[in-house]
Amino acid sequence: MKRAELVQHIFSKKSYLCVGLDSDPKKIPAGMDLLDFNKAIIDATREVAVAYKPNIAFYEVLGTKGWDILEKTAEYIGNDHFTIADAKRGDIGNTSTYYAETFFNTYAFDSITVAPYMGKDSVEPFLQFEGKWAIVLALTSNPGALNFQTLESNGEQLFQHVLRTTAQWGSAENTMFVVGATRGEAFADVRAIVPDHFLLVPGVGAQGGSLSDVAKYGMNKEVGLLVNASRSILYASSGSDFAQKAKEEAQHIQREMELTMAHLF
Amino acid sequence: MKRAELVQHIFSKKSYLCVGLDSDPKKIPAGMDLLDFNKAIIDATREVAVAYKPNIAFYEVLGTKGWDILEKTAEYIGNDHFTIADAKRGDIGNTSTYYAETFFNTYAFDSITVAPYMGKDSVEPFLQFEGKWAIVLALTSNPGALNFQTLESNGEQLFQHVLRTTAQWGSAENTMFVVGATRGEAFADVRAIVPDHFLLVPGVGAQGGSLSDVAKYGMNKEVGLLVNASRSILYASSGSDFAQKAKEEAQHIQREMELTMAHLF
Repeated sequence: MKRAELVQHIFSKKSYLCVGLDSDPKKIPAGMDLLDFNKAIIDATREVAVAYKPNIAFYEVLGTKGWDILEKTAEYIGNDHFTIADAKRGDIGNTSTYYAETFFNTYAFDSITVAPYMGKDSVEPFLQFEGKWAIVLALTSNPGALNFQTLESNGEQLFQHVLRTTAQWGSAENTMFVVGATRGEAFADVRAIVPDHFLLVPGVGAQGGSLSDVAKYGMNKEVGLLVNASRSILYASSGSDFAQKAKEEAQHIQREMELTMAHLF
Repeated sequence: MKRAELVQHIFSKKSYLCVGLDSDPKKIPAGMDLLDFNKAIIDATREVAVAYKPNIAFYEVLGTKGWDILEKTAEYIGNDHFTIADAKRGDIGNTSTYYAETFFNTYAFDSITVAPYMGKDSVEPFLQFEGKWAIVLALTSNPGALNFQTLESNGEQLFQHVLRTTAQWGSAENTMFVVGATRGEAFADVRAIVPDHFLLVPGVGAQGGSLSDVAKYGMNKEVGLLVNASRSILYASSGSDFAQKAKEEAQHIQREMELTMAHLF
């Protein structure tokens, strides 16, 4: 999916909600098939979500059955939503090319999350596919983000250096960055370096990040945000009403998002 | 596999050779089945190799068929060699736990390569499995290593900070580090921080690293090295004699390794 189309979806739905499909056999209603669960969540959120983000680890752990569910889930989402393979891949050039082929061709995702540690030749292979995106980790939402990502060197922190450097390898048409919602105060620093890029923002909801801070410091003229919610939607109820409760939670988030976008209409 | 057993294999075989199974359908003899190719390479190198390292990207790109080949390859290797899932994984805690379960339980590997960018809670889940290992990226062999890994902060480079910090999360019994053979001069810096840990060393052969430099600056009393060769063994010949040529190349490397170990006997 190209940037213009993504922006169009965001403005027409008044939403920048990404639903994280961290679908866990241990947490879904007892006895339910994981693919059926995903389909129910997708149907319940399709109208208010602009993106879906399966967490690849949750499928990989199930072996070939999991990959089959992942493939069928991606097919079920279809082409009207931006799809993110949350896989955190990254390796030397020829290996990254195979990871890119896996998620862009074998499974037809629009984008994949990429770890930047190995540098330019580990990221560039993901930028060679028309209409596909690399979503590079910059400042993540977890506690461990503070171990290395905020180390200062030459007056800037590592995540700032990653933003500045990686932004030059591609463009705002094929590169996004992960910035955790728990880092509200850092969004201004991020926007100082990458004003135009889309940011994928995990950490609202279960991890405690604030949507209004993210919007206040992170939103640009084309919104430029995909804010992810996983557990708060998927497990809004553990009973047979899980899909209805997921729908209500997604609608609730969409209404909050619409308010934060009001100045753009 | 526990450290003592790995060391025993290294001393009894006089080898610290890891064979990288970057098995590429486009490069193996025409018409050959990928699993049969892997089995032939394993049989040809079993006596002189102490470890095998499938590059997960090469299997993932084939879809469920690739995962099936990976599983059967791991089974075929058996329990007398140290096995490395070269997957470069790493995510927030509960996700890393699923990646660990995938490679340690679903596929029964001894170890997995891990990207450190997301910090402590992304690495620790891999250290919770008895007899299993996290192999953390420190200073990689590719050109992009110089983008971020060598940034200086407080008088040390990022890879040194990663070594110093990560070494505290586990021990030399469950943590190894990736240090590229192309960084010969840096092995002394690495050993100053982690004298006892095993290092997984890619980049000898096709990438141009020097085995003698790696041994000179990186070897410790228990050898402490697993030096990987992939393409130079796998594709020593593209003809029907590929297995014989692979064997000869592996034997050649083992003889070089034996010379570098002579002072330890």
